[in-house]
Amino acid sequence: MCFILSYSLTNAQQSSSIHSKNTEVKIDSIISLLTLEEKVSLCHAQSKFSTPGIPRLGIPEIWMSDGPHGVRGEINWDNWGYAEWTNDSITAFPALTCLSATFNPSLSSDYGISVGEEARYRKKDILLGPGVNIYRTPLNGRNFEYMGEDPFLASKMVVPYIKGVQQNGVSACVKHYVLNNQEEWRGHINVKVSERALHEIYLPAFKAAIIEGGVWSLMGSYNKHNGQYCSHHDKLINKILKGDWGFDGVVITDWGSAHNTKEAILNGLDIEMGTGTDGLTTNRKNAYDNYYLAYPFLQLLKSGEIDEKYVDDKVRRILRLMYRTTMSSNRPMGRMNNVEHHEVARKVASEGIVLLKNENNFFPIKDDKNITIAVIGENATRSMTIGGGSSELKAQFEISPLEGLKKIYKNATIIHAMGYASGPSAYAQVLPSTLDAGKLKTEAIAAAQKADIVLFVGGLNKNHHQDCEGGDRLKFGLPFGQEDLIDELLKVNKNMGVILVSGNAVEMPWLDNVNGLMQSWYLGSMAGEAIADVVIGNVNPSGKLPFSFPKKLKDNAAHFYGDISYPGDSINQEYKEGILVGYRWHDTKKIKPLFPFGFGLSYSSFDLTDITTDKKSYTPKSQIKVTCKVANTGTEDGAEVVQVYVGKSKSKVQRAFKELKGFNKVNLNAGEQKTVEILINTDDLSFYNESTANWQLETGNYYIYVGNASDNITKKIKFTIN
Amino acid sequence: MCFILSYSLTNAQQSSSIHSKNTEVKIDSIISLLTLEEKVSLCHAQSKFSTPGIPRLGIPEIWMSDGPHGVRGEINWDNWGYAEWTNDSITAFPALTCLSATFNPSLSSDYGISVGEEARYRKKDILLGPGVNIYRTPLNGRNFEYMGEDPFLASKMVVPYIKGVQQNGVSACVKHYVLNNQEEWRGHINVKVSERALHEIYLPAFKAAIIEGGVWSLMGSYNKHNGQYCSHHDKLINKILKGDWGFDGVVITDWGSAHNTKEAILNGLDIEMGTGTDGLTTNRKNAYDNYYLAYPFLQLLKSGEIDEKYVDDKVRRILRLMYRTTMSSNRPMGRMNNVEHHEVARKVASEGIVLLKNENNFFPIKDDKNITIAVIGENATRSMTIGGGSSELKAQFEISPLEGLKKIYKNATIIHAMGYASGPSAYAQVLPSTLDAGKLKTEAIAAAQKADIVLFVGGLNKNHHQDCEGGDRLKFGLPFGQEDLIDELLKVNKNMGVILVSGNAVEMPWLDNVNGLMQSWYLGSMAGEAIADVVIGNVNPSGKLPFSFPKKLKDNAAHFYGDISYPGDSINQEYKEGILVGYRWHDTKKIKPLFPFGFGLSYSSFDLTDITTDKKSYTPKSQIKVTCKVANTGTEDGAEVVQVYVGKSKSKVQRAFKELKGFNKVNLNAGEQKTVEILINTDDLSFYNESTANWQLETGNYYIYVGNASDNITKKIKFTIN
Repeated sequence: MCFILSYSLTNAQQSSSIHSKNTEVKIDSIISLLTLEEKVSLCHAQSKFSTPGIPRLGIPEIWMSDGPHGVRGEINWDNWGYAEWTNDSITAFPALTCLSATFNPSLSSDYGISVGEEARYRKKDILLGPGVNIYRTPLNGRNFEYMGEDPFLASKMVVPYIKGVQQNGVSACVKHYVLNNQEEWRGHINVKVSERALHEIYLPAFKAAIIEGGVWSLMGSYNKHNGQYCSHHDKLINKILKGDWGFDGVVITDWGSAHNTKEAILNGLDIEMGTGTDGLTTNRKNAYDNYYLAYPFLQLLKSGEIDEKYVDDKVRRILRLMYRTTMSSNRPMGRMNNVEHHEVARKVASEGIVLLKNENNFFPIKDDKNITIAVIGENATRSMTIGGGSSELKAQFEISPLEGLKKIYKNATIIHAMGYASGPSAYAQVLPSTLDAGKLKTEAIAAAQKADIVLFVGGLNKNHHQDCEGGDRLKFGLPFGQEDLIDELLKVNKNMGVILVSGNAVEMPWLDNVNGLMQSWYLGSMAGEAIADVVIGNVNPSGKLPFSFPKKLKDNAAHFYGDISYPGDSINQEYKEGILVGYRWHDTKKIKPLFPFGFGLSYSSFDLTDITTDKKSYTPKSQIKVTCKVANTGTEDGAEVVQVYVGKSKSKVQRAFKELKGFNKVNLNAGEQKTVEILINTDDLSFYNESTANWQLETGNYYIYVGNASDNITKKIKFTIN
Repeated sequence: MCFILSYSLTNAQQSSSIHSKNTEVKIDSIISLLTLEEKVSLCHAQSKFSTPGIPRLGIPEIWMSDGPHGVRGEINWDNWGYAEWTNDSITAFPALTCLSATFNPSLSSDYGISVGEEARYRKKDILLGPGVNIYRTPLNGRNFEYMGEDPFLASKMVVPYIKGVQQNGVSACVKHYVLNNQEEWRGHINVKVSERALHEIYLPAFKAAIIEGGVWSLMGSYNKHNGQYCSHHDKLINKILKGDWGFDGVVITDWGSAHNTKEAILNGLDIEMGTGTDGLTTNRKNAYDNYYLAYPFLQLLKSGEIDEKYVDDKVRRILRLMYRTTMSSNRPMGRMNNVEHHEVARKVASEGIVLLKNENNFFPIKDDKNITIAVIGENATRSMTIGGGSSELKAQFEISPLEGLKKIYKNATIIHAMGYASGPSAYAQVLPSTLDAGKLKTEAIAAAQKADIVLFVGGLNKNHHQDCEGGDRLKFGLPFGQEDLIDELLKVNKNMGVILVSGNAVEMPWLDNVNGLMQSWYLGSMAGEAIADVVIGNVNPSGKLPFSFPKKLKDNAAHFYGDISYPGDSINQEYKEGILVGYRWHDTKKIKPLFPFGFGLSYSSFDLTDITTDKKSYTPKSQIKVTCKVANTGTEDGAEVVQVYVGKSKSKVQRAFKELKGFNKVNLNAGEQKTVEILINTDDLSFYNESTANWQLETGNYYIYVGNASDNITKKIKFTIN
């Protein structure tokens, strides 16, 4: 028996930034040497992914790379084509949804350190990630890059990632600030949302990134909020980010998200990137000179209409970032494609896989020489590092599920059929000309027929209108005829398990008819090894869903109120569900999800007992200590995530039934028991009071709910705040 | 009066290398971690200008750039096209011939520091230069990149350049080792030369670069010597460079100069670059795998035919270079295009210009409002940083002679005519369609006719078959009809001065008819300012010729013996003149040159008096101290180069009449006198004894000749070595 401190302990508002007085003096002295032209030049791109330095003073350029799952391949200087270098193949790490599903902040640290080392080796100063936009609708094409639907979970997972990246002298760049919760019309949609939902749901992970993670840069979003573009937004950047939170880093646009020079100057944008330059090849330098924060900025400074203090503030932040990164004298060299990184990728992948259904212990599948396993589905072999938009990677290798299974099963017979085809990935080899849907299906049915077990490896992929930047999904169900195919396969073989490769929830009309279901995410280089490890039982699954799977789309809060709530009317949208996002909606409205937030099975079983709080009543600015015994009551070593939710019974404002306020993932050998302690700051139970525009901690009765999923609460404990 | 120590003092055999025992232990430990494949990968290119690192261990890539006059623009990954970035415009420094003409090693240090800072800012780890191939024939297209015809001068000038570059944590790469004294057939010509000439003429500057300069890398040449390619040459690399001289750095091919795997392995080549890859785009990585030091090397190691110690030695040298450069934790950040660099470029340019003729004080030309100066000639406006081969630069700016003159002359009227046209530079704007030779000449004559003074700015340029890599000049005279044009201009205006822009001597049938002649080199970004400063008299010229100008081609040693001596018979050539290169030939054979080595006029006049040696007889391993008073007897502040030559009257071997053994450039205000002390190591008077294959100091009588040019000796002093 031992005591483990939970991650809600590390809530102290500390910044990891190197921000010494000495550095600030140096920055002042540099600023005093710069011409207006030089100052302005620092505030905008010189190429697709770099900003200029001041060569005469030896002030370096800043080089950026897309993230967050690895360091993107080199892009051409001035257009979106790949530069076709041969030194930019990297380790592809699992998607952030997977990382979040591990509920393991220490893995997030390993992830951040590793991807930061790769960025450093690739000579990048800023890695454009992680993303912490809240999972609001399963149709959002970019959910796979984010950390789920819960602000507390996202906060706890994003902080170690950032610190890990930045210990390499590489800036993380938390994105996309904020309310970029869909890809449809992202470039202009005006999001209206209550101040409470903004502060309680959409901002907390950014706040944690800044205050706890000490992140050095932040990326604005494409969309508008209350009529103003978020990348130069007075309230969001000036008042909240740089004011309330004291952010001392750099605000960068998303690529092409600046729209107005004066707003960009006055509303806190520091670096403008990606404003259209393609095609302006006759005098490219001028194309960048036409950026909102370039020549037009300079003119306003020269005319005196804009005070020089505005550019000085931006330059000060940019130089501060340089001192933290490219001008830091003691940053390490970085490394890439090393076995340690592969191991981190494998560990995150295998800990993030969520076992959702396991009828009659369908999983794990033993390696028996008398059985034949039919692996069916395009995602058994499809590259998932290619496509998806800016997070696309040039992986040094990517082990497919089929490869992983073939490698691990030494006795059983593995047969394979593609089953369906979605069309090529961006860089996929051309499909064999013999491919047609009917033939694929026939082959798959034949394979299923001769197998003892069918493993259907399907889901979504990284093409447009799937899990991909720049567009949302067009339907909630599985695409490419997979639902029909599953039905057809079940007709010939009922012993089927599904491995769902996706970054989003999908509709599952076939769920009752399959025996097993495993949620695999986009798992990166080691995908196949991780899946195979869990399928065969070398790894006992311990992932928990970081977002709810609704039964039908309408059950999701964003879709309940119709088009004005999602996707909007093309000009505006209103988040009518307010604070009731994800499980808050399902819980409060008593709409049962297909699979709830925090849910995930194991090959073992766990008991939570002796759940207590240290006191019955608390004061503001104190801590609630929740203690719980966790026992592995099964025969397999494994891990369980103790989840602590808090709800308020009577409140002067609307409340979610309960909200996650602490969690702790506990590794337990078979038969082992540990005592877990989870600390909750009473101030974290505050709501955002819209009338005072401040956080307020209500007195009165609260309930703590402790369990291993949002719908599986072992104990409810009443306490009071006085 | 003061004492100035000459540069021949710093002959001590010291290496500037950071070569600590601690580093060597680290290198051993890295080597023990590397696979054979990884070791081999370090020994060849991954792209046009980089070699791979070992990503998994964080061992960085090495990035190189062509030099030596500035850092070349970015080249595509895998072909010779420019990458068209916008951050690679640099300061263009004067050509090395100009640097050498300054006879000022402290300017060479400033030059090296500056270009090294630019290389560092551009993130280059190796700057491919300087070049110290000896000026043997005025037809060599690449002479402009080298340091003249004298091994002593080249040695004294190359060492500070190297130290300057390398203090930035950037490796210099002295080139092209060796006997690459012409461009014609450079890729295969087999050079035969006596061992004496090799050691006494062609090797000394390389030896100084290694032993005094502590250079970290060296580039092999394209040509053969005694039947073996110089880039993997047993005698030159194993025995002399790495054996006798103890070179602990990296031998790099010229781009595509490797020809045989076993020779490359066994004969000291460490890194293979540039072996043809263009066109092999289907599997580019394999193209590099096919390098002599790639897959074929690996196979020989795996089969055991080649011992692993060979690759370990190469890797050790490469890692050592990394510790000195990209893995050095304390190298500075570098800077670029700063005023200090421009000032160094200007200073080298204006100190390197050589005044060759000044009838009736033609120069300086006063800025009088009553005079009209006709500036005639294409080189008055032509870019000389574009073209020339690998030394081509993308200069941030380049002030042409015409611009410089127009800027400085505020009262006189400057008119301009192109006079002749040579065709566009590689990147020049298209010439106006109205241009034709006849019209150009007519315009020029008209301009000359209305002017008081004609300044003809002509010479060679950076196109093929001029001063340009990859080919030699086709004739000794001025091209593009300039000789005729000069004659025509003289018919209408006899008051003409010529500014010769070239890197080579040219034939001058028109010399007697012009009043002034100034040798301008390729002067880089500040060309026009430097020329204008000398023309108007703001700078008093102090450059001295680093090579002899023969009257006719046949008077040059390399051309005396016919085609077998130059250019060879396409397979072989023999340096039949032996040690009698340059002024050694003219002196010894009593063939008067047009302008001799070491010659250069001033706007002032200088007297050398009281020339003495400290003793009459010396022993081996001692120093001869030569003392001389130098007085500026004119009315202009200026500088004079005191030159000390030594000759042996009777010798058992052939001797040049005299050889430069010391020099000192002295700045003197008008009327000022200084005493100069020049130290000569007696061992530097040794000859290379072919029968013992060693240096031998003959006893007996010698003569010291002190003067301000090789043909203007003020005093001859006899001394003895016992």
